[in-house]
Amino acid sequence: MNNLYEQSIELHKKNGGKLQVNSKVPLLNKEDLSLAYTPGVAGVCLAIAENKNLAREYTLKKNTVAIVSDGTAILGLGDLGPLAAIPVMEGKAAIFKEFGGVDAFPICLDTKDTEEIIKAVKQIAPVFGGINLEDISAPRCFEIEERLRKELDIPVMHDDQWGAATVSLAALINALKIIDVDKKDAKVVLSGVGAAGVATGRLLHAYGITNTIFCDSKGIINSKRSDLTKEKIELLKESTIEEKDGGLEEAIKEVNVFIGLSKPNIVTSEMVKSMAPKPIIFALANPTPEITPELAYESGAAVVATGRSDYPNQINNSLVFPGAFKAMLDNKIPQFENKIFVTAAIALAQMIENPTPEKIIPSMFDKGVKETVYNAVSSLSL
Amino acid sequence: MNNLYEQSIELHKKNGGKLQVNSKVPLLNKEDLSLAYTPGVAGVCLAIAENKNLAREYTLKKNTVAIVSDGTAILGLGDLGPLAAIPVMEGKAAIFKEFGGVDAFPICLDTKDTEEIIKAVKQIAPVFGGINLEDISAPRCFEIEERLRKELDIPVMHDDQWGAATVSLAALINALKIIDVDKKDAKVVLSGVGAAGVATGRLLHAYGITNTIFCDSKGIINSKRSDLTKEKIELLKESTIEEKDGGLEEAIKEVNVFIGLSKPNIVTSEMVKSMAPKPIIFALANPTPEITPELAYESGAAVVATGRSDYPNQINNSLVFPGAFKAMLDNKIPQFENKIFVTAAIALAQMIENPTPEKIIPSMFDKGVKETVYNAVSSLSL
Repeated sequence: MNNLYEQSIELHKKNGGKLQVNSKVPLLNKEDLSLAYTPGVAGVCLAIAENKNLAREYTLKKNTVAIVSDGTAILGLGDLGPLAAIPVMEGKAAIFKEFGGVDAFPICLDTKDTEEIIKAVKQIAPVFGGINLEDISAPRCFEIEERLRKELDIPVMHDDQWGAATVSLAALINALKIIDVDKKDAKVVLSGVGAAGVATGRLLHAYGITNTIFCDSKGIINSKRSDLTKEKIELLKESTIEEKDGGLEEAIKEVNVFIGLSKPNIVTSEMVKSMAPKPIIFALANPTPEITPELAYESGAAVVATGRSDYPNQINNSLVFPGAFKAMLDNKIPQFENKIFVTAAIALAQMIENPTPEKIIPSMFDKGVKETVYNAVSSLSL
Repeated sequence: MNNLYEQSIELHKKNGGKLQVNSKVPLLNKEDLSLAYTPGVAGVCLAIAENKNLAREYTLKKNTVAIVSDGTAILGLGDLGPLAAIPVMEGKAAIFKEFGGVDAFPICLDTKDTEEIIKAVKQIAPVFGGINLEDISAPRCFEIEERLRKELDIPVMHDDQWGAATVSLAALINALKIIDVDKKDAKVVLSGVGAAGVATGRLLHAYGITNTIFCDSKGIINSKRSDLTKEKIELLKESTIEEKDGGLEEAIKEVNVFIGLSKPNIVTSEMVKSMAPKPIIFALANPTPEITPELAYESGAAVVATGRSDYPNQINNSLVFPGAFKAMLDNKIPQFENKIFVTAAIALAQMIENPTPEKIIPSMFDKGVKETVYNAVSSLSL
């Protein structure tokens, strides 16, 4: 890993970061300038002043997303601050362009205060057609997203939540096909109820997988607990399975699916063996999963997915956000909601005609990923 | 003009605005991604978390400027709001790239409150290596710039002030050569004491032209006036000429230079005739100058400049900001100050070896403008 770090630093140093801003129009002579800038541009300003909707036709707002972070939950590294967040947001912007044709620009905020973040994002919103929240720690990320969705007239999505959730659901749809279990019967344990865990729970429920048990660092979430956040209470209410007591060891017994968005190495061979026949293991903690694919298969797993690119079945949120945002922008869909992500997940799952344990989800380099997500999301605007 | 407006709208509509954000690094396969994004990028994040200065080496902060406006003083059009400001800021960003090699991104703020603007700019500052304030109305622009210069560790410049002031000074240096008047003897009337007027006054004084009379909409600024802003009082104190009473008609008598940053058609033929021999007229109100070049010359003017590209001697702030910001970024000069603009003005003036009434200042398409400003500003970092 150290070698990869050094290579990456070299790449960033050599290029002075990864992003550049370019003009789409020529500026070669006075005539060019008189149209792109003064005096001609005054006509564009006056037109927008008269009809604000034209900003989405005549300016970069048409195709540009802000990638907003406060640097509090950078990758798996924690709170490194807004400056150290920049390389991740630049990388995300590069992916937005390469895989979705969306112009994206990093906004790394020098504040961690929920209200100040909400205010700052609203104040900078005029230039943008959408807001991608990124690497903002839970539970602030929930309120920030919820409030911004209500208070802004452009789509807002916290990718750590919905990217991971959408791809997990897509992969699970295909994994359940392999073990031939219907969504109504599938029993799922979800370990880790942070940003990605909450969103994954919400999408599973929206899709119709409701036999769900949630575990956080203190054990199974049930109605005896008095320390539950609003999000955890909501997930518990939506679940239709009988409540259990105890920790992950108790939760995982007899269930079909384990989805981990939590911590390295917390799932043992015995735990996998205690699951229902042909268990599905999504061990998504990064870079070290809850259980290695090797050990999971040895212990009887039928299908395994991780967050890593060096194993099959990478749960990679880059499958979703480029095409999803492009569809939101092009179709002027006013706001993200659960059904958009469920629709995208179903479409992603359908890309794999014959799911096998080695291939339940496309790779981001597979042809047609962007178009699939784009068309699925666009279909909701009709 | 209507035709130009329509052509400009067509250009903006066809391209969906003028800016795009692109990656400088390839993202063609898993290996590319592992360096530009996870897992390799974590090494870059950790390096910056340890040494914050590295953000200016490894990220877009190295070469990126925010163009910040609240849309309150868009071109000559007034307060059209942040959405209508976007086309101007995009044009400015395009010029930054084409003429300075600087990446610039528009931030159009949905607030007009001085304190909120200051706070928002500070909060978004991590990603940027400099702040170009633009089209923010006076007098708020003065406090916003002053405070941000003190409270941020990156250079901040309100271009409506310093761009116009620097190019005016450069042009004036050459115009005075033509009429063979020394800067110590030159008497100057400056009409219009808004953003550009205040900055021009400050730079004239810093350069050593201190026989200055300032006029605002209420007439000559003198110590009898009780309605003066802090900026006007400061300019008055720095002036070494005997105070006068009255309006522009009285102010302009016997002076060598008229600089208008005010309103159309306020200078008459008689007023030009009342000036000292071989008067210099800078009629910079846009698009309609204080007096047309034709009438000024008919009335005896020796040298005329305007803000328009269809007459000789355009006072165009695009001569300054691209090269100046590039030099600030490359040399990590911590903050703008008057001597930077004076140095740039002198260098710009020197580009014209033999000034004539038709050519006292380079055009932005002349070769070497960026390099001249860049080298002049860079010389101050030695």
